[in-house]
Amino acid sequence: MIPRYARPEMVAIWSAESKYRIWFEIEAHATDALAGLGIVPKEAAQTIWEKGGSASFDVERIDEIERTTKHDVIAFLTHLSEIVGPEARFVHQGMTSSDVLDTTLSVQLSRAADLLLSDIDSLLEALKTRAMEHRNTVTIGRSHGIHAEPTTFGVKLAEAYAEFARNRARLAAAREEVAVCAISGAVGTFANIDPSVEEHVAEKLGLRPEPVSTQVIPRDRHAMFFATLGVIASSIERVATEIRHLQRTEVLEAEEYFSPGQKGSSAMPHKRNPVLTENLTGLARLVRGMVAPALENVALWHERDISHSSVERMIGPDATITLDFALARLTSVIKNLLVYPENMQRNLDLLGGLHNSQRVLLALTQAGFSREDSYALVQRNAMKVWELREDRTGKFAQFLKEDSEVTLSDEQIDAMFDEGYHLKHVDTIFSRVFGANA
Amino acid sequence: MIPRYARPEMVAIWSAESKYRIWFEIEAHATDALAGLGIVPKEAAQTIWEKGGSASFDVERIDEIERTTKHDVIAFLTHLSEIVGPEARFVHQGMTSSDVLDTTLSVQLSRAADLLLSDIDSLLEALKTRAMEHRNTVTIGRSHGIHAEPTTFGVKLAEAYAEFARNRARLAAAREEVAVCAISGAVGTFANIDPSVEEHVAEKLGLRPEPVSTQVIPRDRHAMFFATLGVIASSIERVATEIRHLQRTEVLEAEEYFSPGQKGSSAMPHKRNPVLTENLTGLARLVRGMVAPALENVALWHERDISHSSVERMIGPDATITLDFALARLTSVIKNLLVYPENMQRNLDLLGGLHNSQRVLLALTQAGFSREDSYALVQRNAMKVWELREDRTGKFAQFLKEDSEVTLSDEQIDAMFDEGYHLKHVDTIFSRVFGANA
Amino acid sequence: MIPRYARPEMVAIWSAESKYRIWFEIEAHATDALAGLGIVPKEAAQTIWEKGGSASFDVERIDEIERTTKHDVIAFLTHLSEIVGPEARFVHQGMTSSDVLDTTLSVQLSRAADLLLSDIDSLLEALKTRAMEHRNTVTIGRSHGIHAEPTTFGVKLAEAYAEFARNRARLAAAREEVAVCAISGAVGTFANIDPSVEEHVAEKLGLRPEPVSTQVIPRDRHAMFFATLGVIASSIERVATEIRHLQRTEVLEAEEYFSPGQKGSSAMPHKRNPVLTENLTGLARLVRGMVAPALENVALWHERDISHSSVERMIGPDATITLDFALARLTSVIKNLLVYPENMQRNLDLLGGLHNSQRVLLALTQAGFSREDSYALVQRNAMKVWELREDRTGKFAQFLKEDSEVTLSDEQIDAMFDEGYHLKHVDTIFSRVFGANA
Amino acid sequence: MIPRYARPEMVAIWSAESKYRIWFEIEAHATDALAGLGIVPKEAAQTIWEKGGSASFDVERIDEIERTTKHDVIAFLTHLSEIVGPEARFVHQGMTSSDVLDTTLSVQLSRAADLLLSDIDSLLEALKTRAMEHRNTVTIGRSHGIHAEPTTFGVKLAEAYAEFARNRARLAAAREEVAVCAISGAVGTFANIDPSVEEHVAEKLGLRPEPVSTQVIPRDRHAMFFATLGVIASSIERVATEIRHLQRTEVLEAEEYFSPGQKGSSAMPHKRNPVLTENLTGLARLVRGMVAPALENVALWHERDISHSSVERMIGPDATITLDFALARLTSVIKNLLVYPENMQRNLDLLGGLHNSQRVLLALTQAGFSREDSYALVQRNAMKVWELREDRTGKFAQFLKEDSEVTLSDEQIDAMFDEGYHLKHVDTIFSRVFGANA
Repeated sequence: MIPRYARPEMVAIWSAESKYRIWFEIEAHATDALAGLGIVPKEAAQTIWEKGGSASFDVERIDEIERTTKHDVIAFLTHLSEIVGPEARFVHQGMTSSDVLDTTLSVQLSRAADLLLSDIDSLLEALKTRAMEHRNTVTIGRSHGIHAEPTTFGVKLAEAYAEFARNRARLAAAREEVAVCAISGAVGTFANIDPSVEEHVAEKLGLRPEPVSTQVIPRDRHAMFFATLGVIASSIERVATEIRHLQRTEVLEAEEYFSPGQKGSSAMPHKRNPVLTENLTGLARLVRGMVAPALENVALWHERDISHSSVERMIGPDATITLDFALARLTSVIKNLLVYPENMQRNLDLLGGLHNSQRVLLALTQAGFSREDSYALVQRNAMKVWELREDRTGKFAQFLKEDSEVTLSDEQIDAMFDEGYHLKHVDTIFSRVFGANA
Repeated sequence: MIPRYARPEMVAIWSAESKYRIWFEIEAHATDALAGLGIVPKEAAQTIWEKGGSASFDVERIDEIERTTKHDVIAFLTHLSEIVGPEARFVHQGMTSSDVLDTTLSVQLSRAADLLLSDIDSLLEALKTRAMEHRNTVTIGRSHGIHAEPTTFGVKLAEAYAEFARNRARLAAAREEVAVCAISGAVGTFANIDPSVEEHVAEKLGLRPEPVSTQVIPRDRHAMFFATLGVIASSIERVATEIRHLQRTEVLEAEEYFSPGQKGSSAMPHKRNPVLTENLTGLARLVRGMVAPALENVALWHERDISHSSVERMIGPDATITLDFALARLTSVIKNLLVYPENMQRNLDLLGGLHNSQRVLLALTQAGFSREDSYALVQRNAMKVWELREDRTGKFAQFLKEDSEVTLSDEQIDAMFDEGYHLKHVDTIFSRVFGANA
Repeated sequence: MIPRYARPEMVAIWSAESKYRIWFEIEAHATDALAGLGIVPKEAAQTIWEKGGSASFDVERIDEIERTTKHDVIAFLTHLSEIVGPEARFVHQGMTSSDVLDTTLSVQLSRAADLLLSDIDSLLEALKTRAMEHRNTVTIGRSHGIHAEPTTFGVKLAEAYAEFARNRARLAAAREEVAVCAISGAVGTFANIDPSVEEHVAEKLGLRPEPVSTQVIPRDRHAMFFATLGVIASSIERVATEIRHLQRTEVLEAEEYFSPGQKGSSAMPHKRNPVLTENLTGLARLVRGMVAPALENVALWHERDISHSSVERMIGPDATITLDFALARLTSVIKNLLVYPENMQRNLDLLGGLHNSQRVLLALTQAGFSREDSYALVQRNAMKVWELREDRTGKFAQFLKEDSEVTLSDEQIDAMFDEGYHLKHVDTIFSRVFGANA
Repeated sequence: MIPRYARPEMVAIWSAESKYRIWFEIEAHATDALAGLGIVPKEAAQTIWEKGGSASFDVERIDEIERTTKHDVIAFLTHLSEIVGPEARFVHQGMTSSDVLDTTLSVQLSRAADLLLSDIDSLLEALKTRAMEHRNTVTIGRSHGIHAEPTTFGVKLAEAYAEFARNRARLAAAREEVAVCAISGAVGTFANIDPSVEEHVAEKLGLRPEPVSTQVIPRDRHAMFFATLGVIASSIERVATEIRHLQRTEVLEAEEYFSPGQKGSSAMPHKRNPVLTENLTGLARLVRGMVAPALENVALWHERDISHSSVERMIGPDATITLDFALARLTSVIKNLLVYPENMQRNLDLLGGLHNSQRVLLALTQAGFSREDSYALVQRNAMKVWELREDRTGKFAQFLKEDSEVTLSDEQIDAMFDEGYHLKHVDTIFSRVFGANA
């Protein structure tokens, strides 16, 4: 994690303070359950809540103890006993460190997922607003970076909306994957602790009990979680790449907001660069790069080894903090995006109507030409337009009319250059994406 | 794809013959829909089915045509016209190549997913059978490769079962992701084809219409699909790694089936190696390696570029064929696994009862010692056992009894060395994993 | 490997025939060395060369034998004895299968590297030719996709040349890494074969002896090899991306060659798409994706496990065949690239001289303005130009002259709009890249 | 970067203080060169060194300025002018931010590489010392985790030594790759700054001038650097995995040092776990995961985009800090490794001499049996030993003697069970790895 690409709410989830608070809650809930089973005194459980519930744990003190014990959970329990007093000895009865650590990770990842879900909701809202605004803003669709046929800027944004709606569903599923609790002992057999403790703690923390753990919660769950983040990051890159393309000097159909006083370059005062979306492209690479280590974490040895731990200490915070930042940044970019419909129209007109080549092709086919001949007729006139370096306005229609082999009438040809033809199903697409009344 | 790691049924999904059959079906269904709209003659649509439906497409002939046209879909349509005759000109009306190609990929990935789901079902069945068989086969649980506490071999297999049950659900979700149909034209606007054609074809092929496509189906769907395969591959590696460990010479608690006449090594006739599970480990790496290219495929330029295509031509078959092979191989390994309960018991006894150290620790705590003092008492006796190089049978109990500071009675100590203590919740775990009546 | 992205010479390196030929040579050279040591009769070694040296090994027959023996090396040796006769029993004395397999992989990777080096040489030649041709073809340099300052198209190509010259050196180093021979027996101790055999075979095959092998050649060598291929693939993507950008409709400064009769799109006859460089982008993803499995192959268990084998069976051919194809395709793209200097000039002029903004800034600084004030003066006039939608020719100079706070004379301003200023060090760059006389 | 896996010297390279110090040096050296060219006053250049050379830059103050300017280099220059006074206006003449930023990254990566090279030197020293110590400590070599033939623990360590010697050479080459300086302006044309400035700064900082930069130093250099770190990390994992295996309870041939008072597990006082090498396995995954983003960074758009920046802000420190920590930890593990030769011997004896099976096979072949018959004879006796569950001492020889078809004399058989046979070339291997006098 680096502060430059981090937002406080997500950072807080991964702070030492948050971690120790969750540790306390797991221990205190477990003690409650043990008290219910008659294994520890009810008063002790109550005292633990009373004294620990409102306490703020001293991270530096715990660090200090850990330097002696070289064990983080033991250090915490020692500090807890300093706060709670002798009743602290009833804490952690029959539990192992992993019970606390793995369940804590589940809580942190679930909370991180909740924040990311909320980020996506904001992004969806922004995408929808701008999509509605530009529902009928006609723009050239491009395949291979080359003008193809017209679409609308709203349709572009509707695609992004649909993609992030899918990402929301994926993330919700990934959240469920990791929202599990394990309090099952050294190899998961509940030898020293009753399964009902796990059930109680799970319920209190909003988790489900892991059906079968082996000291650790199986890491396929976490792998799926981080893989899902990688997919979401890739979608961010897709939208970012679109905007970077639209902002190119020769295209300039849209542009990141450029505030008064902002400097695009220290050396060249004329610059306005899509630095936010370029940054998002880089952040996407980072999140994607964390998928592979998460996948490698699955094949732990026997009931567990600890190789996953260092990986998760890094990618747990890094992937979620980076993605949270990236989603928020993308939302802001979308909200503030400067859109230039007049440039869209100018670019659309650049090829003198060539974007209707398919339509002409179909008309020729319907007029009796074979598909091959139609294609050749259209292509040869299209290439003439293509090679013009001057203004191409109306040239495609003109050349078609001048081509003696093209048997379409001038009226037929002229009729094929209205843009409404291309946009007649925009509403269909919008109702599919945003619902019937969109 | 290499034949050594491929099974015919999955290979067939990706054959040229299958591909052209799907292409035909898409075209023929679309022509039906166009006939319904009155755009092409109903008789033509009928003729196409009659002549094309039973035809076998000549792959070499199509290749020959493609060498001229340099366009695969056009080559196919030309060949189709050779089969169907003049009515073939009504095929592909208003469609683009991507409509056919992307929908075909959806069909192939869906079928591949179905086969993989069936593979997982077989694996689950095998895991369940062996888990039930070894429900109470006691074995030492190991954390960090070091003896921890006892569990059963059935619990190990139950964990694998639960993990693959999760993988099944993930794969079913991933299958839904890619089971979409796009027949929406050059930039997805349906300019030249009515959306109802897409709906018709989708229904006939068991797909859903893609709400918003842009010539191509968005690649976040495919990214999620391949990412899921990467998670499944990682779970395969986990089980494979477990077996490789169990078969080590010094451990030998289980062993891949070794057929009469088989040779473990060309040079060393005494060898019996876990080559199948080692192979699975390598195959898992391969499938995982395909996740990154699939993620990079998401950020296509504008309405589409074709960079994803070469990636999918390779990883589409390679990932599904390799995973199909790996799942089947793992199923076979599990079914035929040689399990050695007596070696499990011998290994369990190796440390002279040290696996009960936690239990002794808890007993001392309950007897009034602080956790720290209890730990020190147990550790010092445990380390004495650890350092014995000869037979350690009964030594841990003996040393505890001989330790004057250990205030437990001999009876109390002896009572802590029964294995039932560790196994009392195996049934709980089984009912969680396999259901209440398991 | 898929035929579409494969060239015969590289495919041949990986064919069964090539493999068996190398196997034979290793065995025959080793037998020579054993004969030199007096361990096998010299006549036998001679007979093996005489009968096997000119033989063509029957792949199907070997496959047939392998179906019985389930061991590929044994199957080959059996087939060899069918060809050579009883002297065949002197073959493979004291060797293990890995001695043959690993050394063969070294030969194949070395040969593949040689071919790739030759590919890079061709690419370098093409880049140099086009760079010289366009040494002074002025074009706008772009940072962030936005016009920055002028450069030349030759400088762009010179950068690509320098990058691939580095890649050549990297690949030559990677080739050295894998050009090693191991004939050291079951765990690398030479227990059953004298180290001089390894030295002899290595010399004959153009390899170096592996200083310490452990049945296998250590896989860090291969990891480095494939990692290097991943870097080269990424450089291919860089050049491909540049061309894709230059071919965009609005930019069109360069274009992939488009042959007469070629079809850019089945549906839209007007299209000319950069499909080759898009394809290269996808191929780069594939080669990059093979780096991770190669890295995971390093940590084999103890003296070896066989998990690396399946990975290498796939990525050995796939990475080298794909990269060979990609390098050749890129060379062809460069050679045939259509370059449009007039479009470069038109784009350069698009912003009415704004690319000289830094120069004006520096002049103002030298005229006594603080950097901050200079920046503000230039920026406010630049933004006025930026926002013009009509022809911007000469506007930046005009606005500067009209700005009463800009104290530069009209002559000073006009003098800042010659392009020679930007190109004065092109020769320096060329001499750095291509040598003093370039 | 997380403090737990970081060492101060490497962290310092990446601190804000170090960064600003390098920025200053670049600017000051460049001003010197500009003074030499007569572009800025020599006194100014001198003043800059005098006031800035001993200054400590105030990170908080720079952050404060950056909050206003939103540009890090401008913020630094502003702070510099607070320190240096009016002469500061001569700093940064004709330079762009990237000139400073990219050259700084080169310095940081070079310094990081130097530290890593020194880490590898320490590791090599430790490996050599332990290899010499255990040159003749006989141990069973294992392929597939199964006993193969004897080797020595020293040979295992010699392999690791040779592997890290290769890694050292790779890293030295990777360091050269990134040790370049670019001061070439907005698109690399030296339009506003003379190439001699770059040469001067390069020389002063121990770098080479980048032959052709394009505002940025090309990222294939950095990709190669991080790919090399990924290979080194994988070698770390290999050694770590070896130790984890050797420490398994059933094997226990070596063990990480376990200090008095250390606790292996909070719950199980008997545990001694290989947690350091498990941790190294996880750290290797992390470093490997950073290779893919570095490779994706190569294909920047045109003369540059800024997508690489966020990636490098994270992986620059993270990869080098993590690898530095990992190398140091591995060195410490090797130095302090507890080695148990008696357990090695006990394990070696476990199979009753089966590790000589190849030797018996060869003897039978020499005695006139075909290879196939020899194999069958050895295998059937080997399998009888294999299936014994009790003590197998001497059993393989005994069964061979009892097998009437085995025509070897008892003396011949007994002679095949000395270990010297396997170790006779250990000295050869050592002289290859450590030099002739090793």
